[in-house]
Amino acid sequence: MANSAALQQKNLEKIFYPESLAVVGANKVRGTVPADIIFSILKTDFQGIVYPVSPRERFISGIKCHKYIADIVDPVDLAILVFPSSVCHLALEQCGEKGIKSVIIISAGFKEIGGIGLEREKQIKEIADKYDMSFIGPNCLGVINTDPRALLNASFARKMPEEGSIAFLSQSGALCTAVLDYAQAKHIGFSKFVSFGNKADISEIDLLYYLRDDPKTKVILVYLEEISDGPGLMKAAREIISESAKPILALKSGRTMEGASAAASHTGSLAGSDEIVDAAFEQAGIIRCDNIEEMFNIAIAMTYQSLPANNRVAIITNAGGPGVLTTDAAIHEGLQLARFSEETTDIFKKSLPKTANIKNPVDVIGDARADRYHVAVANAMKDENVDGVFVILTPQSMTDIEKIAEEICMVSGHYDKPLYASFMGEADVAAGIDILQRHKIPHYILPESMSKSFARAYQFKQRIGSEMTKAVKFDDVDREKVQSILKTARKNKRKYLPEGEAVEVLKAYGFPIPPGVMVKSEEEAVKMAEKIGFPVVMKVVSDEIVHKFDVKGVVLNIRSAKQTREAYLSIHKNVTEKMPEATVTGIYVAKMVPAGEEVILGVKRDPSFGPVIMFGLGGIFVEIFRDVNFRVAPVDQQTAEEMIINTKSSGMLTGARSRTPRDIATIRTCIQRLSQLAVECPQIKELDINPMIVLDENQGCFVADAKIML
Amino acid sequence: MANSAALQQKNLEKIFYPESLAVVGANKVRGTVPADIIFSILKTDFQGIVYPVSPRERFISGIKCHKYIADIVDPVDLAILVFPSSVCHLALEQCGEKGIKSVIIISAGFKEIGGIGLEREKQIKEIADKYDMSFIGPNCLGVINTDPRALLNASFARKMPEEGSIAFLSQSGALCTAVLDYAQAKHIGFSKFVSFGNKADISEIDLLYYLRDDPKTKVILVYLEEISDGPGLMKAAREIISESAKPILALKSGRTMEGASAAASHTGSLAGSDEIVDAAFEQAGIIRCDNIEEMFNIAIAMTYQSLPANNRVAIITNAGGPGVLTTDAAIHEGLQLARFSEETTDIFKKSLPKTANIKNPVDVIGDARADRYHVAVANAMKDENVDGVFVILTPQSMTDIEKIAEEICMVSGHYDKPLYASFMGEADVAAGIDILQRHKIPHYILPESMSKSFARAYQFKQRIGSEMTKAVKFDDVDREKVQSILKTARKNKRKYLPEGEAVEVLKAYGFPIPPGVMVKSEEEAVKMAEKIGFPVVMKVVSDEIVHKFDVKGVVLNIRSAKQTREAYLSIHKNVTEKMPEATVTGIYVAKMVPAGEEVILGVKRDPSFGPVIMFGLGGIFVEIFRDVNFRVAPVDQQTAEEMIINTKSSGMLTGARSRTPRDIATIRTCIQRLSQLAVECPQIKELDINPMIVLDENQGCFVADAKIML
Repeated sequence: MANSAALQQKNLEKIFYPESLAVVGANKVRGTVPADIIFSILKTDFQGIVYPVSPRERFISGIKCHKYIADIVDPVDLAILVFPSSVCHLALEQCGEKGIKSVIIISAGFKEIGGIGLEREKQIKEIADKYDMSFIGPNCLGVINTDPRALLNASFARKMPEEGSIAFLSQSGALCTAVLDYAQAKHIGFSKFVSFGNKADISEIDLLYYLRDDPKTKVILVYLEEISDGPGLMKAAREIISESAKPILALKSGRTMEGASAAASHTGSLAGSDEIVDAAFEQAGIIRCDNIEEMFNIAIAMTYQSLPANNRVAIITNAGGPGVLTTDAAIHEGLQLARFSEETTDIFKKSLPKTANIKNPVDVIGDARADRYHVAVANAMKDENVDGVFVILTPQSMTDIEKIAEEICMVSGHYDKPLYASFMGEADVAAGIDILQRHKIPHYILPESMSKSFARAYQFKQRIGSEMTKAVKFDDVDREKVQSILKTARKNKRKYLPEGEAVEVLKAYGFPIPPGVMVKSEEEAVKMAEKIGFPVVMKVVSDEIVHKFDVKGVVLNIRSAKQTREAYLSIHKNVTEKMPEATVTGIYVAKMVPAGEEVILGVKRDPSFGPVIMFGLGGIFVEIFRDVNFRVAPVDQQTAEEMIINTKSSGMLTGARSRTPRDIATIRTCIQRLSQLAVECPQIKELDINPMIVLDENQGCFVADAKIML
Repeated sequence: MANSAALQQKNLEKIFYPESLAVVGANKVRGTVPADIIFSILKTDFQGIVYPVSPRERFISGIKCHKYIADIVDPVDLAILVFPSSVCHLALEQCGEKGIKSVIIISAGFKEIGGIGLEREKQIKEIADKYDMSFIGPNCLGVINTDPRALLNASFARKMPEEGSIAFLSQSGALCTAVLDYAQAKHIGFSKFVSFGNKADISEIDLLYYLRDDPKTKVILVYLEEISDGPGLMKAAREIISESAKPILALKSGRTMEGASAAASHTGSLAGSDEIVDAAFEQAGIIRCDNIEEMFNIAIAMTYQSLPANNRVAIITNAGGPGVLTTDAAIHEGLQLARFSEETTDIFKKSLPKTANIKNPVDVIGDARADRYHVAVANAMKDENVDGVFVILTPQSMTDIEKIAEEICMVSGHYDKPLYASFMGEADVAAGIDILQRHKIPHYILPESMSKSFARAYQFKQRIGSEMTKAVKFDDVDREKVQSILKTARKNKRKYLPEGEAVEVLKAYGFPIPPGVMVKSEEEAVKMAEKIGFPVVMKVVSDEIVHKFDVKGVVLNIRSAKQTREAYLSIHKNVTEKMPEATVTGIYVAKMVPAGEEVILGVKRDPSFGPVIMFGLGGIFVEIFRDVNFRVAPVDQQTAEEMIINTKSSGMLTGARSRTPRDIATIRTCIQRLSQLAVECPQIKELDINPMIVLDENQGCFVADAKIML
């Protein structure tokens, strides 16, 4: 393929660090995109040469215009296309001829408008591939690089953001302008800022890999409306997090069905199921955020301060009420209130007023000034029982707000431990907050945001500290048998496998199946039932019958030859009555599984992420509580364990409240085997094992019923 | 009682609207509370006469000081005490002698410091009662009344807030300063602003009643750290909401156990269980908020705009991404996206550009200016399928932000329908947001806050529109019998009632009890079992045995005389083996209840709210899922219904997934009867009916086992 990852990487470097660039389709009508872009670039002191290309203008802003790209004598690293979509392909062709490898296509009017737009998008992609070019867009706001080596604002954003360590990638251009405005007010800086639009060529995945290697970037933020390559995104995230320890924060819109349908009409793309996005992000280590503000709240915590070593926080406040509210929020997020060392407690006793509460949350009392805050904050930071400090301030009449802000900034600089602040109020505290923000102290309006950000930073720290496990591949599986069953079924245009074959497939992948066989006569049924050993179960086998219970095609707990005969006849009778048109292939006779806990395992295919594995307890737990967990395949052992333990009803298996513990180890293995089956057999569209009967610890499981859809 | 509600009401009027006031303990050292208070009052152009009372000063700020209160010749309506706590009682005594009925005690050093502080607080309360005085505090920030008739800032807050329709009550003084600062920046005005501190005399309940009748107040906000009179608060809230339709929003700290313990050390008070606070607020119609910001977000929605008639919102945006995010948030809060009428759709088709998305969420496209926003917003407001409009703006280069803000304000004025806005970003949009805030358009940074505020306003609208139901009182109960059982038990210093008596109590309150009797011999057991009719159940009766199953003191499903004898002997044998020290009073023989769904009903007493009723499904549902609901007694029929239906597992009773519907009507009655029992018998500390067996619809229920703790 022309667009290999390596090529994208190489061409991306020129997108962010071009030594020369051409703005193709430039004009000088202020307030139009083509003009805004060129003025943006010139205004920010771009470290390279700018070539306006315009069929009409002689010069723009004192710079000579070229009529065609080919007219530019010197080499050009980057082309920025602002022509109408109808002629973009022509301009792109000329870029290719000129040998330009890196392009940003700002122009709209492609996939997002459907119809002719789709064709145009296909066309420009083909041209790019032909010339080994890479492009961002189309239908985007552009690209910003604050690195002093580049100082590139190739966008129609209102202004260049401050330099910083946060990279921001966005599928929506409009959101970018809001984000830049938001960030400016809070002195949040960016390393790279990319609106990638329709991602017809360069995708968020290419950009993520580029940012992994970008020394200017510490934290990566992505806004996504649609995920086209789920597994690719998960792989990239995993690699980036483990190799560079850079956190990836994502905002994915379309959480609800209504949201998803709006997304579809917006960028002409279908959103996958949101539950699966949650699972996939969790598996890949991507921190999913609920909104822009939350994303930046967490981002500044992780960018400005070190990650917390553990979850014990100290709260310093000059007001009791907010101290209580912050405690509530911290505990809610799973943080602990630190217990101060004796030394710290002694210092607090000596240095703080008698009326102060020297236990955590420390209340330095309403008349506290900077010196008292200093004592409390510095000693809390020093205490080895403390992993992070939350400083709360309310503007009392005595409070020297700015002085306290400065003091906090100074103390923070002395310790490699996170310190976050919340100056409550707005007008009076504004100057203090500004000082904090300029000095990279994460500031939060709400105790909830502060606690959540700390918790996410702590969880990320734990993740990068833990070992990555890989999905095992079981060798004891009979792939050929399964492939042959699936092939035959497909040849016969079957929509699903009959019981016997579904069971065969699972057996071939090492699932514990009770012994069983299909019979075609009453005599054979008795013979086989006796051979298998009572009690047995008998089920109708028919291509046309999916829901065997509904036609009374199943008899359980058959304990004698007599009962076998009766069951054989009644099944035939029932099926003939309920579904006279169905052809009965035979009756499946199987060993009756002993009593145990019922669980359900399943496979479905997600349009973005591919095979997804489901686990939950059966019966009422799945039917009424919908208490199931999803994970994207392949599923490793630890993930399988999480799938089981994180169901709310897992107590039924673990032996809660003096129940017998069940054989969780075997369920774990079954989940992994199912994951392997789903990955190796893409022909399987959906699969249900319902129920699987789980016996007591070390006693195994049995598949009691299974369906496979093709 | 001296402090009747009427008296408090009367004296409160003079606290907010004094024609003359004395600041007792005033001085002129700026930066101290006594000086700050007097300067606050003078600075805000108070509409009355100020008398500084000071043992030391001759004058303060040009006003003559009096040495003693008695020295003031004219009558004084209000005294503000800023003396040290050790001499406050002397000053208060003098106020009483002078005939002052209304007092604000700012001074700290009372209950909150424990020990001597507790005594001081008792002392001042006694003095107040003696003279029929009412006071706010002690340990508070003071009182503000922005009404031009009063213009009273009797507080040491930094500044007087703007006039407005929101009343704010706070148990924490420190939080008040943060709130005032926050509100100032957002142009949020207040009618009354009260820091009520230790509420030794005037409580939040008195203040709520006062605000019900205050024509300047439209919405009431309360910050509480501890609820001393739960039932009183619930009664007040119910009355205020139904009589005045004024919403009450509350922030109650101490959500977590750790938070609660910090609260205890802060105001010397114990927080009740948080789950019960949730239930009580829900029952009383109090809107519980998670933080200050959420409280004001909802408050401005309800103060500035009319309440939504229904939940269908229109979203107008100039950017697709934020439109999707807002849709997600709206759906998450249970709102609906409005479907525009044909007329509206036609106008949009004609007036908006072709590329615009004219379906909800309406995307007016990035280059939209004020005129286009006007068309979209005005026509959405006009559409009768729309109950409210969310206007989203991102600052694109073409966006005339302030103009759009003005346009929105104008349109909003023409329609009696809620309109909220979110101008995304911060710096560029600031001037636009300021215009919105000054014109009372609720503005939100996050789509989540906007949607939540709309949803709360809508729910409140529904509540005030629905009829209040009252708990029924069942007349067919045998109160005397129950009281006599409880009296005897108490006389015998019993901690709990034995099975037979617990069942008698429930029976006397109309619970369906399977027939049963206590027997003392094997022969009697057989006789009674035969009389009751098989199958029966037999249980040991002993004062020392609470957990009968643990000592194998229960035999179920006894079907013959022979089995009865066996059971009788085995129970005696088991109990003798397991608990040889226990005295066995007899064996209880009862009709075996037919199979059905197991539920659990219970009573516990909350220190703040009194008797609390619990309901849930039994067995695993309560043990593993903790799927139970609480409500404060008395419980009316509708509340009982909610308790049942709002459990997650209610599907087990309602007949979900082709289950048999159970007799919910009888459960509902049982809950109400239990509520009546809990209210009428305060001697009952805890009660468990576990399980109650619920049969199919119209088939009734049976109490299978019950425990009553005294």
